[in-house]
Amino acid sequence: MDHPLDQATRITPMADHRWQGTTQAAYANMVGPFGGITCAVLLHAALQHPQRAGDPIALTVNFAGPVADGAFEVEARPLRTNRSTQHWSLMLTQDGVPCASASAVFAQRRPTWGAPESRPPAGMPAPDALPMAPSEGRPAWVRCYDMRFAPGEEAFGLDGHEQAHSESRLWVRDAPPRPLDFVALAALADSFFPRVFVRRRRVAPIGTITLSTYFHADAAMLAAQGDRHLLGTARAQVFRDGYHDQSATLWSHDGHLLASAHQMVYYRD
Amino acid sequence: MDHPLDQATRITPMADHRWQGTTQAAYANMVGPFGGITCAVLLHAALQHPQRAGDPIALTVNFAGPVADGAFEVEARPLRTNRSTQHWSLMLTQDGVPCASASAVFAQRRPTWGAPESRPPAGMPAPDALPMAPSEGRPAWVRCYDMRFAPGEEAFGLDGHEQAHSESRLWVRDAPPRPLDFVALAALADSFFPRVFVRRRRVAPIGTITLSTYFHADAAMLAAQGDRHLLGTARAQVFRDGYHDQSATLWSHDGHLLASAHQMVYYRD
Repeated sequence: MDHPLDQATRITPMADHRWQGTTQAAYANMVGPFGGITCAVLLHAALQHPQRAGDPIALTVNFAGPVADGAFEVEARPLRTNRSTQHWSLMLTQDGVPCASASAVFAQRRPTWGAPESRPPAGMPAPDALPMAPSEGRPAWVRCYDMRFAPGEEAFGLDGHEQAHSESRLWVRDAPPRPLDFVALAALADSFFPRVFVRRRRVAPIGTITLSTYFHADAAMLAAQGDRHLLGTARAQVFRDGYHDQSATLWSHDGHLLASAHQMVYYRD
Repeated sequence: MDHPLDQATRITPMADHRWQGTTQAAYANMVGPFGGITCAVLLHAALQHPQRAGDPIALTVNFAGPVADGAFEVEARPLRTNRSTQHWSLMLTQDGVPCASASAVFAQRRPTWGAPESRPPAGMPAPDALPMAPSEGRPAWVRCYDMRFAPGEEAFGLDGHEQAHSESRLWVRDAPPRPLDFVALAALADSFFPRVFVRRRRVAPIGTITLSTYFHADAAMLAAQGDRHLLGTARAQVFRDGYHDQSATLWSHDGHLLASAHQMVYYRD
């Protein structure tokens, strides 16, 4: 049987540049599907488009409104294809109403000088040495990820005592395990809990407004990661008047930055 | 006479959701206009649209191809307007060809619990105590900004000796000075030199592929900043196979984060 991620991102052609899909209960969030699965569906449409050229470099998804459980349509349209880059316009609609509008840039990568600059967090025990974070009482999508937080950290506390920071470090991979590819990475980039939960140690109504994911690896690097855990970090810079930012990194098992992601999150008191 | 930024972002209506503008020599880059002015033009179209609701929270611009000197058209179309957010589709074309496709999210901000998390860089001397960075030999747009780098730092060296990092700290404002608003801030968010120049201490062919700017302040906070220098930081996380990321922050004179920006940059050896 297909992996739940493949079921949730399956789309069938309707017309040029248009596909149909159906939300899956496995990836349900509080209201509608987990935002990461929406990102994965949109990127998948471009990846399997007959005019696709190259691998994803960037994906930006703006969450325009709730996605209802059930059928949706996806449009993926190449706006402009250059010698080394391709620009995409993407949209997820229900009954003609935009639920998510998105864009992607694909590119042909070529070997050049390169260098890491950020380092992965030091001192993380191996995933096997850490407990899997519990998913009881959480939305269904949380059970689609195996998360193992740094010692002394947790997904987020619930005692309402505000912390001085919202940083988290964890190992994360699909559950059940699945070999890494761009579709899975696009969803993983949104698997970090909203920083306002972490900072305030309590749950509140939130919604991601916009998410940009940058892919720093080609398909071969993702394949080399296989189904091992990725090392993730997330933090915020500022919470103000109902909106906070959030930046995340996802590292390979051997310390290469595979993706970084940035978002703005709406929150209520 | 109008400020050069206002001249370069001036657009005149053509039809519903469509305007015309003209590139200005003051903001010329190596090829075509400075990317920041393209961001400013696109945001300006949404800001002065009769259906606008709220202030900008996020702007993503994908640079699909070069903009030629001369006339351009801008389309700004509200995709969906909710109770507190408004989603925009934006495009800059020349002769019907997409040069930049973009999206923006506007929102009505409401007072909530808030907190800073990142801190502005410590130990920066006042702008008046630092020399203005020279602009000789640089593209015209550099003269549109008054940049004052941290002591011992410089825009970027030219000796080709690779540095261990690409971080920069500087004071920056429009030149001549201009009161801060969202249009100016959208351009300032792209005023940081490409990190590959800083890291490698040499100039090479580059191009921003995509840029997302997050606005953390409302119009009143921007007005309170006036025409004073903003404190900026920029850094990269990884350079690999022709693409590097870049993250920047822009702080008010009194230490509030006004905007953060993230981009992917194409580079050649």
